[in-house]
Amino acid sequence: MLNPTNDPTIPTGQKRRGGSSSTERPSVGVVETRTFTFAQREEEALDLDSGARLGPITVAYETCGRLDARRSNAILICHALSGTAHVAGYHEEPGRNPGWWDDAVGPGKAFDTDKYFVICANVLGGCAGTTGPTSLDPRTGQPFGLAFPVVTVGDMVKVERALLDHLGIETLLGVAGGSLGGMQALEWALRYPERVRGALVIASTARMSAQAIAFNAVGRNSIISDTNWRRGRYYEDGDIPAQGLSVARMIGHITYLSEEAMHAKFGRRLKRNGLAFDFTSEFQVESYLDHQGTKFVERFDANAYLYMTKAMDYFDAAEAYGEGDLVRALTRIRARMLVLSFSSDWLFPPYQSQELTDALLRARKDVTYVNVETPCGHDAFLLEIETEGRIIGAFLEATHRASGGD
Amino acid sequence: MLNPTNDPTIPTGQKRRGGSSSTERPSVGVVETRTFTFAQREEEALDLDSGARLGPITVAYETCGRLDARRSNAILICHALSGTAHVAGYHEEPGRNPGWWDDAVGPGKAFDTDKYFVICANVLGGCAGTTGPTSLDPRTGQPFGLAFPVVTVGDMVKVERALLDHLGIETLLGVAGGSLGGMQALEWALRYPERVRGALVIASTARMSAQAIAFNAVGRNSIISDTNWRRGRYYEDGDIPAQGLSVARMIGHITYLSEEAMHAKFGRRLKRNGLAFDFTSEFQVESYLDHQGTKFVERFDANAYLYMTKAMDYFDAAEAYGEGDLVRALTRIRARMLVLSFSSDWLFPPYQSQELTDALLRARKDVTYVNVETPCGHDAFLLEIETEGRIIGAFLEATHRASGGD
Repeated sequence: MLNPTNDPTIPTGQKRRGGSSSTERPSVGVVETRTFTFAQREEEALDLDSGARLGPITVAYETCGRLDARRSNAILICHALSGTAHVAGYHEEPGRNPGWWDDAVGPGKAFDTDKYFVICANVLGGCAGTTGPTSLDPRTGQPFGLAFPVVTVGDMVKVERALLDHLGIETLLGVAGGSLGGMQALEWALRYPERVRGALVIASTARMSAQAIAFNAVGRNSIISDTNWRRGRYYEDGDIPAQGLSVARMIGHITYLSEEAMHAKFGRRLKRNGLAFDFTSEFQVESYLDHQGTKFVERFDANAYLYMTKAMDYFDAAEAYGEGDLVRALTRIRARMLVLSFSSDWLFPPYQSQELTDALLRARKDVTYVNVETPCGHDAFLLEIETEGRIIGAFLEATHRASGGD
Repeated sequence: MLNPTNDPTIPTGQKRRGGSSSTERPSVGVVETRTFTFAQREEEALDLDSGARLGPITVAYETCGRLDARRSNAILICHALSGTAHVAGYHEEPGRNPGWWDDAVGPGKAFDTDKYFVICANVLGGCAGTTGPTSLDPRTGQPFGLAFPVVTVGDMVKVERALLDHLGIETLLGVAGGSLGGMQALEWALRYPERVRGALVIASTARMSAQAIAFNAVGRNSIISDTNWRRGRYYEDGDIPAQGLSVARMIGHITYLSEEAMHAKFGRRLKRNGLAFDFTSEFQVESYLDHQGTKFVERFDANAYLYMTKAMDYFDAAEAYGEGDLVRALTRIRARMLVLSFSSDWLFPPYQSQELTDALLRARKDVTYVNVETPCGHDAFLLEIETEGRIIGAFLEATHRASGGD
């Protein structure tokens, strides 16, 4: 399905070495983050699932590829917990800081920008350009902090819909995402069934499990316990709840890797020779977690972590659309569905994708399910691009054909 | 194997309702924690694996049952991370605060105190009576804190050996434990092969995996990040690193339960009706974790948590006794071995017990391996007493017979 990179027929754009790819791969080149603001007037404020109203709302987004004349080739990619609108290409110097799914989005890639118009927006409640707890509260002129309303995956999708309206896109050929992104894809198919032709729910679930909620809850506890958190009012001076956020991220990273992947990657290897007999980080796996924690603190906001994880915890498609009955909830879907899981993903285990698939079948929906064999754990949706890409590419092509595209 | 509780031939001691048992079970009755202090003189100080020397060392221990005339029926039970010497029976009022393995230790139970003399000691580095970071440093008259040397599972076992010498017990019929306790059982069989007839390694491993180290490391990070921790010097005034220890314990509890058990126990059930749309704990699984965190802080020391988890991380039988080769390490063992794992234990997964068993077989040792089917996760070694007890009882009887007991 994927065109090989040495195929001379591929329009290559700026052909540059991707972040994690060892071969030359075509790239969408330099992209720009744009913003769109809506609900500027009181009466236009967005009704949130909590009952609160929010406005104005700014959405940070990026696009690549071209919208066709019939506006029928748009694909919305939804990011996961720590993602941004920067899904593919480069912001400035090509080759540096590629988008988070650059291996999957570009000319000849799974999300083929020669064929499709790809949109990715930072989610509501995030901290990468879209309105969230770090934004200024118009009522006070100060950052929202905890005054920001608790939002749901449904609210995130409402904001994405407003963006699509702004871009003049009535129908999505596809909406795709992994993890929290997969929840958004499923929510799209449920909330706006008439606007979605294909939904790709990857490494995700129809409802968060108790264990996944537990991990999120401990991460939030860690942030809230940090004395610098100060009930979310840490924006004024320089002391941020870095330790709490860092520990939360470390917990997250354990859940993103499989036990097998951790063993292969680190085993019991030490940083230096011999045991230290102190409490410094001495196993390589400890250094890895330290590094992930430190890096994350530099680019992510602790309050946003609270809001994003809460939205995930609340996600329950059965409850929201079927009074607890998943099959009943899914009957409203009109999109072709692709459900993709990864064998070693224990955060969103394959059985949850299988339950979703079973329920889709029982609701007589058009669903394709693939469980990709991999040792990469939950992170596989970012890593197993070769296999995943072939499946995604085929699904999008078929959906395009089914909807009258060429 | 287990005598049914209504068997009139069982000497019942104080027959009381156990903590988690719904039927009347015999009990060892009221037990007392005793202490033994050794290495009181400089030249008797214990040589630790780190190269440091430690003394004096006090050991808190409890016993139940009677040592036979040949001193051939002693069983040492080693506790896990948060355990104490109080393995069975009651301290004061019968029925209240039973020992942590009361369902398994007592008249007619798996560790049958009508037949065996059971000893359980709090480990070195702990905080329940045996010398550890909360003890007074004789050099300063202040609590050790981080001045306490980092200890290993080997060091814990050396201290247990000193206790057995004190009790006049040359040979153990059995040494048994789950989790960290299982590591001690294996260490006993390796370190003092001539003193162990049977070793029961339950829900444990021959070496900590990268993932298990990772969870411990994040727990330690959480404690160390707590501003009240103050490099371990928090004993002087009332502010202890409660939040950090609580988060560490929450992480632990997630790893003790299986995903399946969490789902069955909590699912997505809320404490109250309806979502709160705030950051209070609202899912029942969150309340459970909060409760576990809070309870733990009342009875456990944050520094001890650092020391105990570090000892676990360091545990690697292959490295310590076989230069990295597990089979080679195990050749020194003379005990009959029982390896017990639990199907849904993902902290010490069955495959690790199977690796240990395979290595024991390749080293031509007498080994019995059982993987108990259970949804209870790592905690199963404390919960699946019925099945586990039958296996343990049979193993101990056979070991007793093999060593000339009746």
